[in-house]
Amino acid sequence: MTQDRTDAPAPAPEAGGGTPAPADDAREGSGLSRRTALGAAGAVAGAAALTAGGFAAGRTAASSPQTSAYDFFGAHQSGIVTPQQDRLHFAAFDITTDSTARVVSLLRRWTEAAARLMAGSELGSGAAGGAYAAPPDDTGEALGLPASGLTITVGFGPGLFDERFGLASRRPDQLIDLPQFSGDTLDERFVGGDLCIQACADDPQVAVHAIRNLSRIAFGDAAIRWAQLGFGRTSSTTREQDTPRNFMGFKDGTANLRAEDTALVDRWVWADASDGQDWMAGGSYLVARRIRILAEIWDRTSLQEQEATVGRTKGSGAPLSGGSEFTAPDFAATGRDDAPLIRPDSHVALAHPSAHGGAMMLRRGYNFTDGADELGRLDAGLFFLAYVRDPREQFVPVQNALSSSDVMTVEYLRTTGSALFAVPRGVAPGSALGAEGAYVGQELFA
Amino acid sequence: MTQDRTDAPAPAPEAGGGTPAPADDAREGSGLSRRTALGAAGAVAGAAALTAGGFAAGRTAASSPQTSAYDFFGAHQSGIVTPQQDRLHFAAFDITTDSTARVVSLLRRWTEAAARLMAGSELGSGAAGGAYAAPPDDTGEALGLPASGLTITVGFGPGLFDERFGLASRRPDQLIDLPQFSGDTLDERFVGGDLCIQACADDPQVAVHAIRNLSRIAFGDAAIRWAQLGFGRTSSTTREQDTPRNFMGFKDGTANLRAEDTALVDRWVWADASDGQDWMAGGSYLVARRIRILAEIWDRTSLQEQEATVGRTKGSGAPLSGGSEFTAPDFAATGRDDAPLIRPDSHVALAHPSAHGGAMMLRRGYNFTDGADELGRLDAGLFFLAYVRDPREQFVPVQNALSSSDVMTVEYLRTTGSALFAVPRGVAPGSALGAEGAYVGQELFA
Repeated sequence: MTQDRTDAPAPAPEAGGGTPAPADDAREGSGLSRRTALGAAGAVAGAAALTAGGFAAGRTAASSPQTSAYDFFGAHQSGIVTPQQDRLHFAAFDITTDSTARVVSLLRRWTEAAARLMAGSELGSGAAGGAYAAPPDDTGEALGLPASGLTITVGFGPGLFDERFGLASRRPDQLIDLPQFSGDTLDERFVGGDLCIQACADDPQVAVHAIRNLSRIAFGDAAIRWAQLGFGRTSSTTREQDTPRNFMGFKDGTANLRAEDTALVDRWVWADASDGQDWMAGGSYLVARRIRILAEIWDRTSLQEQEATVGRTKGSGAPLSGGSEFTAPDFAATGRDDAPLIRPDSHVALAHPSAHGGAMMLRRGYNFTDGADELGRLDAGLFFLAYVRDPREQFVPVQNALSSSDVMTVEYLRTTGSALFAVPRGVAPGSALGAEGAYVGQELFA
Repeated sequence: MTQDRTDAPAPAPEAGGGTPAPADDAREGSGLSRRTALGAAGAVAGAAALTAGGFAAGRTAASSPQTSAYDFFGAHQSGIVTPQQDRLHFAAFDITTDSTARVVSLLRRWTEAAARLMAGSELGSGAAGGAYAAPPDDTGEALGLPASGLTITVGFGPGLFDERFGLASRRPDQLIDLPQFSGDTLDERFVGGDLCIQACADDPQVAVHAIRNLSRIAFGDAAIRWAQLGFGRTSSTTREQDTPRNFMGFKDGTANLRAEDTALVDRWVWADASDGQDWMAGGSYLVARRIRILAEIWDRTSLQEQEATVGRTKGSGAPLSGGSEFTAPDFAATGRDDAPLIRPDSHVALAHPSAHGGAMMLRRGYNFTDGADELGRLDAGLFFLAYVRDPREQFVPVQNALSSSDVMTVEYLRTTGSALFAVPRGVAPGSALGAEGAYVGQELFA
């Protein structure tokens, strides 16, 4: 099931009908939609500013690849089976308050803001009237940009269930403390978090704007623990998307679960009441792993060895047993000297669902690069994101197999960051938002 | 003068006619154009792979905003007056050899590779034939992607003119050691460099691929000293581009020099023989400054104070003396109590050409964010890039004024990185490239 996406302008939140209600009178009737200011997608260049001295900004949409908006509301949060956008800004947060009421308040404020941001609307009251003497509610760097396919996905880390908030008994068994895997070289700067936000968009400025403003809203209640920018997706979540390449130069995500396979998505992505914690029904678990690719070593490996390591051709992505990209690998096929065409220690063999009782993950990862290290090597690799119904069955066994036997993982990858989050269900269509309204995760606090 | 840009596929380098010649026989006739593999822009989805087991990759161009290519060759290097692309990967390098011949060899290899990358072509021989047992010449992550408007711009830092290479007498007077400005809090991880490469593109994956492969080509001769990713441009270099916003939420680059103003560009951007070093005629000087924005402080400032600090409205970008974005500021205009409408200590007043003898810069900067600091604040800001004919007249006086008096600079900005590079002229159309061929900067070594 994919998210609905509209190419016509989405209604601004204040338009009513399943959209967020203003939090208080001060915000009522203000809150300019960035997209309303633009008019429809493809608005003429130089669309006039709408208010005197205010925030209304005209900008042609021509330089942005997508202007459309996804619906914030739904049975599931957006950003999971949504067609994967090309750009990511991800942040993990530490909760800095001991007050459960403050956490609930934060989630309400994030929910309301997320709905506005996804609609392409400015946060708060903009610059109109008496707000001139106050700090703007919105930092402004996305003014005039369209919604850009933004999705915002909120998750809960193990820390939310510690002694502070009385939620220990509601911690799902699936929300484990991830084990240290063989080969992990974790950097504490990229580990854990009490909360997370995944912001994906077609325009990185829109994704960064979202994380920046959500972290600003959290001031006093939560602070960014670590953050990661991703510049290009490394998987597809729908069949209509073509297959991108990772930093090893190979197509990635060919065998990914797709949104169209609703039975498999129900089986492997969405938690339900039978999984033990009612509040997580309709939710999922997000595994986040920052994986550095030892590019200097990989790049000196022959094409033959690279393909044997992956189990696929570099050009087309076809399995080495033959066919084309989407041909199923034939692990029994042999060649010269009866050697298997796909090595048993190749990545495709060790990670394949057939080696793990059929277990699949919905991958949603990104390429990253974060400057250079002290040896002049790019600090670059794959920011692995995957949504699973149960990390114990779907991620841990696969990662154990890869960590111990996979030539790719052992020789060419180093995992430097790691975290797991419970991602609750979505906010129901028609819900009112705001100070007393609905919010992401409210079933946990009920 | 803007660069020519073609929307039809550019000829692959091996097609001859002012395009690079193969470096050696091993590369002859191979080197698949990524764009040739795609066919024309907008090729149908799933274009077939062209070679068996090789690198030819089909990918629809639909997910990339631009497929067109700029010409590598010209009187000036590309990436200066080229319409500014939305994404940046910048790298500064230390030269790690003491051999002048190796530096020349590196520049020849970079030149040949840059021409191929800008045309959307794969580096080297691809995966055909005997190369199967060797490491691929191209790391592969841009396979199937169009040229994406990539430009590659090479610069020389002061270190190239030290005792190692016998070039001290050819160091331009303009290539100063930048002074430490008041308020600079430089981090040695982002300072200096013997060489630099600026890679700009519509697709960040294409820009990162270029820097990665050029740094790989440099192995043994030069290593990345520091690198910076930029996710959104903060200026326009042609009038047809709309004005983007920086991380302070304001439109940036409204008064930027534009490529169409050729007389001003000749006056303020391009060096000529009268500037003292013949080899720099047709070149320019690139100032690179990594400026962190103290967003938490800025974001708590009232809109009124923000606008007074900048000297423009946040919404439309109009000067506070009135009019619209492109109205010239009137620094003499006064309001209540005869106070100037634009404060003398505002950014626009202190940076304006009228305060500096008419001096202008061609800005080409980018927004950046690099994770979070130990206090949970995004490490984000402006990666300032500007091309000038003489930094002593155009950058240093302006920066001195800003560092001492500009409320924005003093209160809300911290410069953490700084470097200056001499950017030589372009490689003439029709030049042969390769082991004996033309290269960027060859006039310096003549």
